[in-house]
Amino acid sequence: MASTDKPESAYSSAPAGNDYSLFDFILRFLLFASSLVAVVVIATSKQTKTIGPIEREANFKNSPAFIYFLVAFSVSGLYSILTFLASISFLQKPDLKLKYLLHFLFWDALILGIIASATGAAGSVAYIGLKGDDHVNWNKVCNVFDKFCKHIAGSLAVALFGSVVTVLLIWLSAFSLHSRVPK
Amino acid sequence: MASTDKPESAYSSAPAGNDYSLFDFILRFLLFASSLVAVVVIATSKQTKTIGPIEREANFKNSPAFIYFLVAFSVSGLYSILTFLASISFLQKPDLKLKYLLHFLFWDALILGIIASATGAAGSVAYIGLKGDDHVNWNKVCNVFDKFCKHIAGSLAVALFGSVVTVLLIWLSAFSLHSRVPK
Repeated sequence: MASTDKPESAYSSAPAGNDYSLFDFILRFLLFASSLVAVVVIATSKQTKTIGPIEREANFKNSPAFIYFLVAFSVSGLYSILTFLASISFLQKPDLKLKYLLHFLFWDALILGIIASATGAAGSVAYIGLKGDDHVNWNKVCNVFDKFCKHIAGSLAVALFGSVVTVLLIWLSAFSLHSRVPK
Repeated sequence: MASTDKPESAYSSAPAGNDYSLFDFILRFLLFASSLVAVVVIATSKQTKTIGPIEREANFKNSPAFIYFLVAFSVSGLYSILTFLASISFLQKPDLKLKYLLHFLFWDALILGIIASATGAAGSVAYIGLKGDDHVNWNKVCNVFDKFCKHIAGSLAVALFGSVVTVLLIWLSAFSLHSRVPK
């Protein structure tokens, strides 16, 4: 669409705006991919073992921290799809992008808070499962449920990557906003 | 100091720039206060109880999650002192502030990631201490160490408040940057 006022055409002629949009687009795809992998890997972590006469099951649903983790990364996955699609549509329209840069930054900061706390919550429960805690007699879990713990560890690694990507997204949006402020 | 180019004087004449600096200043003070309280309350949580013939102690140092929590909020406390002092010095110089707004936003995002994950990590350990986990035979701790758990809970509440303040700081910096982009 043809713009009517001059500042907008000044933006679209700047190549820098396009470059940031491309990075934004890549980072949002990475956030989507890592959220999806984190959710799928933790959701498929169920393991059943027969110990003596009884059958015992390790399931992420038994821990509120893992449930919060799954919900948080489902939210960030959905969020990244929406903003990924928005980011694609902005690739050709850098002036439209400016309008949404602030909204992106607002939501990115919220999502960072949610997924970073979820990664911390699930990580500390996984650490107790791996090492146990002798002071309060919390026994190790991972020596029995090896496959379960491998899934949790894999999911946590991907989640940490997703959190770093979200920090980079905030940095990119901030840098992109800052580059448009007249010096 | 007298500025030589006109955009700077245009900023200093805008009252909006000053208002944001004041909010920034208040939020950084709140982050400092909540970091300090969170650190002091968790550091003083030690409780000793004699159960039968043996004396048992609950100490935050026994849990890596609580140690990470203490370190994270010590870092955010120090960071908030530095940026709080910087923010005071910018109250009278909104044009100097612009130069550092981007750096503030970068570091604020990192600090948010650190303290949100620390709050999540300590929160999930505290939850297991409060409720226990029957599936893996992790017993409750808080029914014995009541004072210890009250300290942890208080520290977590203040930590959550500090995390929200950090999100607001990012929002404020983003809004402040956005308000300087010509429409």
